[in-house]
Amino acid sequence: MSKPVNIGLVGLGTIGTGVASLFYEKSATFAARTAAPVRLTQIADKDLSERDVSIPDGVLSSDVDGLLSNPDIDIVIELVGGTGFARTVVLKAIENGKHVVTANKALLAAHGEEIFRAAHDKCVDVAFEAAVGGSIPILKALRESLSTSRIDSVYGIVNGTTNYILTRMANEGAPYDELLRSAQDAGFAERDPSADVKGWDSQQKLAILMRLAFGTVVRADDILCEGIEHITPLDIDYAREFGYAIKLLAIAKRHGEKLEARVHPAMIPAKTLIADVQYEYNAIEVIGDEFGTQVFYGKGAGRRPTATVVVSDALDIAQRIQSGAPCSRVREIIDRQDAPTLVPPDGLSMRHYVRLEVKDHAGVLEDIAHVFASENISIESVVQKGRATAETVPLVIMTHEAKEAAVSSAVRQLEELDAVRPPVQRIRIEDLP
Amino acid sequence: MSKPVNIGLVGLGTIGTGVASLFYEKSATFAARTAAPVRLTQIADKDLSERDVSIPDGVLSSDVDGLLSNPDIDIVIELVGGTGFARTVVLKAIENGKHVVTANKALLAAHGEEIFRAAHDKCVDVAFEAAVGGSIPILKALRESLSTSRIDSVYGIVNGTTNYILTRMANEGAPYDELLRSAQDAGFAERDPSADVKGWDSQQKLAILMRLAFGTVVRADDILCEGIEHITPLDIDYAREFGYAIKLLAIAKRHGEKLEARVHPAMIPAKTLIADVQYEYNAIEVIGDEFGTQVFYGKGAGRRPTATVVVSDALDIAQRIQSGAPCSRVREIIDRQDAPTLVPPDGLSMRHYVRLEVKDHAGVLEDIAHVFASENISIESVVQKGRATAETVPLVIMTHEAKEAAVSSAVRQLEELDAVRPPVQRIRIEDLP
Repeated sequence: MSKPVNIGLVGLGTIGTGVASLFYEKSATFAARTAAPVRLTQIADKDLSERDVSIPDGVLSSDVDGLLSNPDIDIVIELVGGTGFARTVVLKAIENGKHVVTANKALLAAHGEEIFRAAHDKCVDVAFEAAVGGSIPILKALRESLSTSRIDSVYGIVNGTTNYILTRMANEGAPYDELLRSAQDAGFAERDPSADVKGWDSQQKLAILMRLAFGTVVRADDILCEGIEHITPLDIDYAREFGYAIKLLAIAKRHGEKLEARVHPAMIPAKTLIADVQYEYNAIEVIGDEFGTQVFYGKGAGRRPTATVVVSDALDIAQRIQSGAPCSRVREIIDRQDAPTLVPPDGLSMRHYVRLEVKDHAGVLEDIAHVFASENISIESVVQKGRATAETVPLVIMTHEAKEAAVSSAVRQLEELDAVRPPVQRIRIEDLP
Repeated sequence: MSKPVNIGLVGLGTIGTGVASLFYEKSATFAARTAAPVRLTQIADKDLSERDVSIPDGVLSSDVDGLLSNPDIDIVIELVGGTGFARTVVLKAIENGKHVVTANKALLAAHGEEIFRAAHDKCVDVAFEAAVGGSIPILKALRESLSTSRIDSVYGIVNGTTNYILTRMANEGAPYDELLRSAQDAGFAERDPSADVKGWDSQQKLAILMRLAFGTVVRADDILCEGIEHITPLDIDYAREFGYAIKLLAIAKRHGEKLEARVHPAMIPAKTLIADVQYEYNAIEVIGDEFGTQVFYGKGAGRRPTATVVVSDALDIAQRIQSGAPCSRVREIIDRQDAPTLVPPDGLSMRHYVRLEVKDHAGVLEDIAHVFASENISIESVVQKGRATAETVPLVIMTHEAKEAAVSSAVRQLEELDAVRPPVQRIRIEDLP
């Protein structure tokens, strides 16, 4: 009954090289999991130069179309990256009746619906565990183990680069620019770090988590998103005094038929597991009605951790093929009823930390209080913090729960006050359960 | 192609009632996961009295044999408990060609090999996620997501009752006996707490983890095991001063072709994630060559969390049945080459904390030092700790790495010294990575 399964790999970059190494070094380990061999038969990449993996003759070529139309290939692993050519590769593979494994969060966040529906029509699987949380099996947990529960919230640290920078900022007190350069030199941040530090990577991952946890399909861009570039060691110090740590969080919470979702640096209680997550590690917390709280922790990126999960996805599909399973599991992903709908960013309410540099003269506090009052924001505490300079005094205001749009408007108005030196710092507070 | 899958449940106790509730309350949620309905068709229990779940007429009876031989039943869920009748139920179900789901760690630790081999011969699945870590999908992670890595260690807190008692001891300073009674009253400990507090439950779970993580098959009894009954608030205080917390750990570590495995209260660095695990929660840390460190955290017990996982296992199997898969996945479990072999307890080496009450007179320290020296145990530090009583002074000795058997022998000799008031307290130190 069982026949060998043949895999084609498109894209021999960092992760692709890791995947190839695993296939060539560890195929004996896979043998125990599958009824017949699973082989990496063909690799396509436009760049044919040498990599630090030894590839058998005749396997690597630049002929992507040849790979995608090779009738012997059962599973295509897409590791091209981006949303252009990668989309073509994935849709073509599906059209040709091949199962797909991808680590491409940008692609799935942008074109997931099109890809999943095409796969459903062709009765092939799309597996993408590596797209969120690197080696952490969070997507499998959501799709399988926790699927008998109603999920109430999913949140956590899903970007290692920003957590690396924030961890070092907390430990060393160094400023953002210096830490970013150092992270780039150490290989923890890209030359163009925008996708990580502006939160876009977390935004895409959250969109994928929301699809699996709640059945809610959104454009990643519709999720409130703020990066970490404006966070300073001063804010981390102040946060610590209030019993908080600052982490870039991706958060999705169900409120009945509504779903709150956002990505931003958040002050979270220092005594939580998430606050303890250091350097490039990721951690995702899931709360469900049946199982309570679960946390999944591990490396969110890296060649070998990610490659391991890509290969695991391929082996899962190979097992299904070899077991004679006639159709795919994509139906679970697209076939969701009663999915909660996204609350637009302006509809969100949170507690806030607002830090201002003010000129210390009579009437300043009254002007500031007036701005908050006019936006219907009630203030929990005002503290004069840290050292005054010759011209200004730092002031930290903690608000009660206030509307996102109202706080944005208040910050703009505060920055226009004569007595305030812009920028006004604003960090959302997330009192995790 | 897809036909409904029928489930028979044997044992309608706490977890069984939770499973039945899930099927009757949530079957609509399951529908998205499976191609055709999955139904709880038959329930057997010797006790036919009312439960807090409403069961349709004709479903519940005391006829276990009738259920096991019913040709319509595809999957049998065994929730009888124990290793006697439960073994009969499981083997009979397998013999009749039915897949099995069980939460019974004692059964799998004692008769796993017999059960898995029978299932392999009959080409049926045995699923048992609920046997370890309650709702935490650790077994699926080991079998599927992490299976492309070589696992180097698995350790953590796998018993909620003992962690609940130790957490309260650390927070409140109350003694063991009082906390046990309170845990029993709160439903966190059984009337006969032996299996939990003596470490046997953790020992069985570790045996199951070892099978999946390393392929090593052992009798649970062959794993070094010590319970928490002798731990005192005083030891927790001292541990804290040295920067440690005390947790009941189950530990398995690979050293090449050898496997070290043990269950005991351990002093672990207070700044680790595992040390932060509070009350009835469980956390399991896995280290592998490809993915580094992962931690899985969640509720290790409880009716609904456990029932959720049992139902998830049943749905996984139902999906396989409906997909037309012709044979089971048990082969992965029994078919392991190069499994490391268990190091006998006497072959283990660890650092130790040894606490003695000694009469404070000249020559005492020399006598004590002589015992350690005669067993070839080198001492890292000796500290006189806490308040002296009229008769004795507490002394805490931290050793360098020393053989398990040597420390046991030293403790016996120390207890016989005139100047020492027994018992001598001995706690192993585990410097987690």
